[in-house]
Amino acid sequence: MVAPVGPGVVARRVLVIGAAGMIGRKLCLRLAGETGELIQHDVVPFEGASVVSDLSVPGAAEKLVASRPDLIFHLAAVVSGEAEADFEKGYRVNLDGTRRLFEAIRKENYRPRVVFTSSIAVFGAPFPEAIGDEFLSAPLTSYGTQKAVCELLLSDYSRRGLFDGIGIRLPTICVRPGKPNKAASGFFSGIIREPLAGQEAVLPVPDTARHWFASPRAAVGFLQHAATLETAKLGNRRNLSMPGVATTVGEQIAALRKVAGEKAVRLIRREPDATIARIVEGWPRNFAAQRATALGFRADRSFEEIIRIHIEDELQGKPQPRAGSG
Amino acid sequence: MVAPVGPGVVARRVLVIGAAGMIGRKLCLRLAGETGELIQHDVVPFEGASVVSDLSVPGAAEKLVASRPDLIFHLAAVVSGEAEADFEKGYRVNLDGTRRLFEAIRKENYRPRVVFTSSIAVFGAPFPEAIGDEFLSAPLTSYGTQKAVCELLLSDYSRRGLFDGIGIRLPTICVRPGKPNKAASGFFSGIIREPLAGQEAVLPVPDTARHWFASPRAAVGFLQHAATLETAKLGNRRNLSMPGVATTVGEQIAALRKVAGEKAVRLIRREPDATIARIVEGWPRNFAAQRATALGFRADRSFEEIIRIHIEDELQGKPQPRAGSG
Repeated sequence: MVAPVGPGVVARRVLVIGAAGMIGRKLCLRLAGETGELIQHDVVPFEGASVVSDLSVPGAAEKLVASRPDLIFHLAAVVSGEAEADFEKGYRVNLDGTRRLFEAIRKENYRPRVVFTSSIAVFGAPFPEAIGDEFLSAPLTSYGTQKAVCELLLSDYSRRGLFDGIGIRLPTICVRPGKPNKAASGFFSGIIREPLAGQEAVLPVPDTARHWFASPRAAVGFLQHAATLETAKLGNRRNLSMPGVATTVGEQIAALRKVAGEKAVRLIRREPDATIARIVEGWPRNFAAQRATALGFRADRSFEEIIRIHIEDELQGKPQPRAGSG
Repeated sequence: MVAPVGPGVVARRVLVIGAAGMIGRKLCLRLAGETGELIQHDVVPFEGASVVSDLSVPGAAEKLVASRPDLIFHLAAVVSGEAEADFEKGYRVNLDGTRRLFEAIRKENYRPRVVFTSSIAVFGAPFPEAIGDEFLSAPLTSYGTQKAVCELLLSDYSRRGLFDGIGIRLPTICVRPGKPNKAASGFFSGIIREPLAGQEAVLPVPDTARHWFASPRAAVGFLQHAATLETAKLGNRRNLSMPGVATTVGEQIAALRKVAGEKAVRLIRREPDATIARIVEGWPRNFAAQRATALGFRADRSFEEIIRIHIEDELQGKPQPRAGSG
């Protein structure tokens, strides 16, 4: 009775776990018109929620898959900083919660497509100049460890035919809309988002710091492509580093200047922070995402495009740096 | 109160989990004279057992670490074939059992050395000519998946200072003493062991099949070296592919001829088996185990030496191929 999922095929029933998050909300907006039934789940109540529950509590996953959604997006996670600060919570939610979902699907005994968002945090320094598709997962955080473990489980469950899984390692999402947060990576978005809104932003690392980015719009595109991809093409390697844009902070700033002028750039205040600089140094900087590219995943074309997407999608097309702030 | 473990330092209290296995027994024999107290554990009763329990049952791991052994060898596992045939048992023992051990140590809140035996089964084809230290874990069995997950956990627990872990990926152990078993890899030992005992052996794969070997004696040496290695040298990459001997079946047979003559070789009966040949094709063949070698782990020098070790350690120095069998 389950409709096949494939290119051009609309899933009959779609479950989004982690639907209240930034990417989850954008994905659900995109799916709303294309889906028979959309089940939106999160641990926190939110507008449009279908189910609110803690996936790591026994029984919650079974309830979610009882209606046999033929396409499941699993985006829910305790973020990196929290998983590092709270060992037990990180493992309970990110590892056990995901495993409970996979087990619930196994016991329901049907074979949905499962799209899992992994992270470039599965990789840890030292790195080659560009991280290729055969580079080892040696995470340097508990969050990265939990994601890497779930990738392995997803591969094994898929190999055994228990579901049809694909794991996509998202680049750092930039420009993140909304308020500044306390994530160590927050400034990558902040130095673009705040000046475009006429606000000051703090830059804690040198202009030479390089990182790997995708826009929220590209991230939603990755998820949609992963949902319809012919997974036979993946063989037994079900986890893919997504393509992105490798950009230094200096190049970010140059792109901001091009899009919004010197007035915007002057709102960036350099305030070196050795701790953040050290954390960022341990992060992946650049990838050779050949498999994903060959499979049709498409990155933003440039960091300038990433800024323009933010302006289109979040600022109704108009940046607003104030004249008096420079 | 816990004695430090380091080069030349004798551990005060040593726990061997999986002590009834072939490697476990040999390790315990070697440790007996060098250790303050030796706690031998397995799930099956055996001569010399200190504790018999199922590590995957709640409470068992806590009991094992309550006496705070300062050195723990974790060798216990459901083997590859069984983990593939019995999904739930494999995950329960190999993943949950190991995690229960790690959690029990975390909650006991001391920092023992933990030596974990992983496997080259964490790797899956396609492979490069030689698998290097930065090659991805993409296992093609549930057993390999479970080992790869435990490697990730061991790294994270070690990084967080919860214990001082090291994971060693053992090559295929050859020559395995004892009766032939039903493992798909059994013939690699069988074509040496049986002829040396005057028995016929079946060879199901072509002479060109290549694989990665270590003797039981080398494996025990790896474990002892891992127990005393200065782990600061490992950085955050705590799992190592052990060095070994890459040998084709043809080279195995040539070494057997050199050691035991044509009479022994004539006891090998070629009986091609497409299923076994296909399984073996998916296995790692060759490694560049540079990190482990640089850290002082030592492989057997040749496959001929592997045969001679079997004759010394298992056959009191004397092979016994019967004249009449050829």
